[in-house]
Amino acid sequence: MSYKVAVLAGDGIGPEVMVEARKVLAEVEQRFGLEISYSEYDVGGAAIDNHGCPLPAETLQGCEAADAILFGSVGGPKWTHLPPDEQPERGALLPLRGHFELFCNLRPAKLHAGLEGLSPLRADISSQGFDVVCVRELTGGIYFGKPKGRQGEGEAEEAFDTMRYSRKEIRRIAKIAFETAQGRRKKVTSIDKANVLACSVLWREVVEEVAKDYPDVELEHMYIDNATMQLLRRPFDFDVVLCSNLFGDILSDEIAMLTGSMGLLSSASVNGSGFGLFEPAGGSAPDIAGKGIANPVAQILSAALMLRFSLQQEEAACAIERAVGKALSEGYLTGELLAADQRHNAKSTKEMGDFIAQAI
Amino acid sequence: MSYKVAVLAGDGIGPEVMVEARKVLAEVEQRFGLEISYSEYDVGGAAIDNHGCPLPAETLQGCEAADAILFGSVGGPKWTHLPPDEQPERGALLPLRGHFELFCNLRPAKLHAGLEGLSPLRADISSQGFDVVCVRELTGGIYFGKPKGRQGEGEAEEAFDTMRYSRKEIRRIAKIAFETAQGRRKKVTSIDKANVLACSVLWREVVEEVAKDYPDVELEHMYIDNATMQLLRRPFDFDVVLCSNLFGDILSDEIAMLTGSMGLLSSASVNGSGFGLFEPAGGSAPDIAGKGIANPVAQILSAALMLRFSLQQEEAACAIERAVGKALSEGYLTGELLAADQRHNAKSTKEMGDFIAQAI
Ligand SMILES: CC(C)[C@H](C(=O)O)[C@@H](O)C(=O)O
Ligand SMILES: CC(C)[C@H](C(=O)O)[C@@H](O)C(=O)O
Repeated sequence: MSYKVAVLAGDGIGPEVMVEARKVLAEVEQRFGLEISYSEYDVGGAAIDNHGCPLPAETLQGCEAADAILFGSVGGPKWTHLPPDEQPERGALLPLRGHFELFCNLRPAKLHAGLEGLSPLRADISSQGFDVVCVRELTGGIYFGKPKGRQGEGEAEEAFDTMRYSRKEIRRIAKIAFETAQGRRKKVTSIDKANVLACSVLWREVVEEVAKDYPDVELEHMYIDNATMQLLRRPFDFDVVLCSNLFGDILSDEIAMLTGSMGLLSSASVNGSGFGLFEPAGGSAPDIAGKGIANPVAQILSAALMLRFSLQQEEAACAIERAVGKALSEGYLTGELLAADQRHNAKSTKEMGDFIAQAI
Repeated sequence: MSYKVAVLAGDGIGPEVMVEARKVLAEVEQRFGLEISYSEYDVGGAAIDNHGCPLPAETLQGCEAADAILFGSVGGPKWTHLPPDEQPERGALLPLRGHFELFCNLRPAKLHAGLEGLSPLRADISSQGFDVVCVRELTGGIYFGKPKGRQGEGEAEEAFDTMRYSRKEIRRIAKIAFETAQGRRKKVTSIDKANVLACSVLWREVVEEVAKDYPDVELEHMYIDNATMQLLRRPFDFDVVLCSNLFGDILSDEIAMLTGSMGLLSSASVNGSGFGLFEPAGGSAPDIAGKGIANPVAQILSAALMLRFSLQQEEAACAIERAVGKALSEGYLTGELLAADQRHNAKSTKEMGDFIAQAI
């Protein structure tokens, strides 16, 4: 099997963790007889510096010619003075999502055995563990709804954004949530604000309709404000969390932080044809970039998600996930995952990559 | 000084905790020579049962004739089958906020000394305590923006909501945030999603302008997704959190849950003339209603907020807060604030009210 992957390493720790993901992929290719050709393109701040914009035309063309995008991370203090539209994060991610209609964002987050102490939650809560997948709608809602803009003068000047969802948009993401739940603990918690938003009332209606086709999956509805709270008290009661674009942005980050190990979390953004963008859930971490201490696991796991969702190589994906699991359970950890008095045991970015590659 | 207060006790535990708030107010009136006349009105589920709608005309008229509204809580399983617009919470609270232009919602949340263990946060985080006020815009944004509705047919049918903010609306709430910060630790964290929302870009601009008039107050901007995370790691770094309506709904509940003691938190919703609605931050808790075990502190503290903001009786407000502080620091607590093995020491709703009234 031969595939083309567009590699957009980006800024900050992006390039250095990407090296490790490529190392692991090379092992996987050999072991599973895959042939992946990689093309690298500038994105984010690096692209602003080299080409004047965060998503140059040739990067977009490179992505179009590929079967999947392996994305690093973008952004950093150098570019925060730019207007929002031109900043690395917004200027690269939103157009990519829109252009390829990557409507489905999957963000798995679990508390790894032995790493419960990293969670900011109280020991008696975190010791129960949790394992949640956030299924976020990614190309609709208030992110892309029109009209959006400004009008008026002086103190009466006002800005406006439109939250907008069609039945079709809600249905396709809801289906993915229920299918995901079928392969897991068979529970979907659908998040909305149906006591205030017209979009949420429609959301609830369509999710109820979709639920009828999955009688084995339990459905509950929860208001976004209540969800923010319940996740703090009993994260272990959640399995698949289904969200619109804005609510998913908020809740997936809350859930990620509840693991206390952002450097282990990755994210898949896919469209209806299996094409997708795969990236770590954390940011570009400019403060630790270039020091060789960044955790490459999130980037490595996003390569696994790429194998699973875009390249249909489930076994290869599992092999990576198993190898990562081995590293973590054997205490092979980067510094940020270790208690202060254990930090002399910290592995470097490269050591982590080497270990995981070997474990494939 | 003589005042008129409209008492809307509502559903669930509302009526029983209101009894205790009235008891405490009676003490305060005597001690500070105030004359408050109370008129009681149905609201929420009780009003649906008795009058067919959650906010009857006579309730609204009663509120209009008053200097402030002392609100209990509304809602319960009996009314959840109703369409959102007719449900107790939405059908009573939103019209009251809109009608009286209660644009400013203040929600103080702090971790009381000795009660850190209630927080769902890890001991090393909660032991540092925190003390945050959420200042939420309450009559604008996506809650009230027009157009809001549905159009189209079949799978193309779509729903839409409009988020809308004028400079004037942003300025008046931002001012309150900065003034609040001046009386506290002099820091405002303004929450937005300026990398996606036009409303947030304007929000940031106006907040920056307002900040110029408060050079002694530090201002930081934070994206809502990031705020959700940072509050989990370092709640003690926040002082005043300034939010639009929707983001404030989400964050104020997250912050409330971080205290682990919802039954101690109250909320003030005021307009430009000092008129306001004062209520516990928690809900109607139908599961424990009528058992005499509900914590009346949030209701009692909302009476304090009423004295402070609508009746301009700062000293009387402080007297209530001191009396509550005394109860808590002497371990005078309702059951939900006690560890399982201490629960035999739990005070009843009435005992709490009696103690606090006596301590005035
Ligand atoms: C950078 C930003 C536009 C983006 C979003 O809000 O979707 C980010 O927060 C994310 O979640 O990927
Ligand atoms: C009941 C609901 C409409 C309300 C809101 O969203 O504002 C509630 O959650 C609150 O925060 O007071």
